[in-house]
Amino acid sequence: MPPEVLPRALEHPLPAGMRDLLPEESAARRSLARQVLHRFELHGYGLVTLPAFEFAEVLERGLGMLDPGDVLRFVEPESGEVAALRPDMTPQIARMIATRLRERPAPLRIAYEGTVLRRRSGRARKHRQIPQVGVELAGVTGPSGDLELLALAVEALQAAGLREFTLDVGDAGIVRTLLASRSPEEQARLSDAMGRKDEAELDDPTLRAVASMQGGRDVLVEGTRLLASTPAAGPARRLLALFDVALERGLGRHLVADLGEVRGFAYYTATIFHAYAAGTGDAVVSGGRYDELLGRFGCAMPAAGFAMDLDRAAEAMRAAGVTEPAVTRVVVFGPGAEARAAELRAAGTAAVTAETRAAAEEWARAWGFTHVLDSATGASIAALEAHPVHLAGGT
Amino acid sequence: MPPEVLPRALEHPLPAGMRDLLPEESAARRSLARQVLHRFELHGYGLVTLPAFEFAEVLERGLGMLDPGDVLRFVEPESGEVAALRPDMTPQIARMIATRLRERPAPLRIAYEGTVLRRRSGRARKHRQIPQVGVELAGVTGPSGDLELLALAVEALQAAGLREFTLDVGDAGIVRTLLASRSPEEQARLSDAMGRKDEAELDDPTLRAVASMQGGRDVLVEGTRLLASTPAAGPARRLLALFDVALERGLGRHLVADLGEVRGFAYYTATIFHAYAAGTGDAVVSGGRYDELLGRFGCAMPAAGFAMDLDRAAEAMRAAGVTEPAVTRVVVFGPGAEARAAELRAAGTAAVTAETRAAAEEWARAWGFTHVLDSATGASIAALEAHPVHLAGGT
Repeated sequence: MPPEVLPRALEHPLPAGMRDLLPEESAARRSLARQVLHRFELHGYGLVTLPAFEFAEVLERGLGMLDPGDVLRFVEPESGEVAALRPDMTPQIARMIATRLRERPAPLRIAYEGTVLRRRSGRARKHRQIPQVGVELAGVTGPSGDLELLALAVEALQAAGLREFTLDVGDAGIVRTLLASRSPEEQARLSDAMGRKDEAELDDPTLRAVASMQGGRDVLVEGTRLLASTPAAGPARRLLALFDVALERGLGRHLVADLGEVRGFAYYTATIFHAYAAGTGDAVVSGGRYDELLGRFGCAMPAAGFAMDLDRAAEAMRAAGVTEPAVTRVVVFGPGAEARAAELRAAGTAAVTAETRAAAEEWARAWGFTHVLDSATGASIAALEAHPVHLAGGT
Repeated sequence: MPPEVLPRALEHPLPAGMRDLLPEESAARRSLARQVLHRFELHGYGLVTLPAFEFAEVLERGLGMLDPGDVLRFVEPESGEVAALRPDMTPQIARMIATRLRERPAPLRIAYEGTVLRRRSGRARKHRQIPQVGVELAGVTGPSGDLELLALAVEALQAAGLREFTLDVGDAGIVRTLLASRSPEEQARLSDAMGRKDEAELDDPTLRAVASMQGGRDVLVEGTRLLASTPAAGPARRLLALFDVALERGLGRHLVADLGEVRGFAYYTATIFHAYAAGTGDAVVSGGRYDELLGRFGCAMPAAGFAMDLDRAAEAMRAAGVTEPAVTRVVVFGPGAEARAAELRAAGTAAVTAETRAAAEEWARAWGFTHVLDSATGASIAALEAHPVHLAGGT
């Protein structure tokens, strides 16, 4: 190796936006994912596993929501075809349903866990890896399917330990029908202005009114009245009907109606929802209905779903003071330490051994173990002041 | 979309070697990974999370074992540098230790779970995605570190439900020292012949003898005697010493000594081990000691580890008749079905609803639910003959 390569090589850089999780962060993320996936499982959603990359042509067929510039593509060396690292898991699920699950009776309830990769447009162009858990519900139309998903999103957020959050619910059909007669350029300009609530840019009084309609049932009722004689009357009534069944289901504490919702409106066909919580600016949960997606894979069927961004959820949990219960983990030292550690493990407690008390304490502090145990006397000491957990089995 | 694109697009092919796991397969794999990771955790191994791709230059620094042709590389669009999908997680752990964990007290006990991607040389050139769980133990020299890993590998295999397996243990130093005086070409030719047990190719009587020395402690003692006056005397004695402490630890039922072991001998510096079980030709577990690896990342420290190939483990489990316990999952139909399903979920049982008994039975059979429950009468029926589980709580 030529010596001039050494300094760079010894830096071991990671590609922009990529990162590692050390044991403490990794354990917290895994625990969060397990809790949320367990809720999905209780509701009958079966976990599937998907490949990390696929042919770009197949993936992008289902990616109405993303800028194609956001997708990381590369040439697959075996076939010479262009592959892409998945920027979203929903098109993969759609492909799987179309090829391998279409014969099964509806509703199809699918859960997934994985990391998606998005490039970021703008000056600070870099990747973002987003760890997600999510669900897809296919073969059920709204509102019963939409209600199932809204209720499950609330349960998922509660499973993460969050109590205070809002669930913004809109309908992509409202803005879409209001803009239907415009040119594609106009649609893009106006939906962008709607997203920024830039009323000066909005040349239509109905659009201007809708842009600021966000609130409780009263706002939604007012909006439905305002839109009654417009092409958006149907989508507005649909949103009100969903809102009402969601209130009946007891979700009212979290619900916010958002008539001017435009995020992903080119992708979603009806209901769109996003959950927000203090501590993070981005949505913790994003979802909606995309009844046209499966048709693009030759298997027309209504479908809806949502994903939880586990990094955003972790930020919200930190802001809300949600903490993991401290798990007892023990460093045993002294004669017979290995046998004592084996006993602890057999009883379900993590245990390692160290030669001396000093080594045991140093190791426990550095690696987040809660106790050191003298195998000679059986006396245990809470190693970390922050976790004064009583050691079951230590006398 | 031009019509001639349609047929290909509607096929939705996956890149060669990539595959999906449907809910049933995915649940089995996840359960296996959890059980093995739980054993790792009980032994103090902390789970880390690693990015799916990194700069090829960094990854390949730690890849002595793989043919560079096995690595899937692509140009990272942001930096213009060459990135690689990880073909092995050990170099990533080494990079992480060198950059973020080097200040923590040894031993470093790291666990991981993830999919690695290898290209395959040969006529049927295609990728192989290998789902793995594994551990790395850094900062401990053999034999105590090696013994910890051998014992943990046995526990991991037992956690997978396997009882009958062999753990082949060799030492890379034996063949390496015997070949040390040869040219690199000779070393490659002879180690290849050793791997194929091709005695005609082996021009040295010691190499010929060593190639066939595989068996219990008696074979190992005989080998140690044979090699006593050769440069391989030290590595042979080291292997015998490890074998003896492993026997003392009660691992004798599984141990096989393999003096001519050459798989990965350019990568491993001492102990090499592989676990085999009926039902799969490839190793279920592969590991060993690579004391030079961390030095390549500027953080010289002894290190060893192993990975379990979850696909191979699943094959062995099938061959051994290891079955998952059937988990009760219920489809409720009839009036009040939703409330009854909510009760079941609150009690920890997965439940969905259906309109009619016929729909409930069809859905349960197709999606692997074990019971259908009439919410009007409370009567439950085992839906799948293969899983006649009594429904707790159904009367």
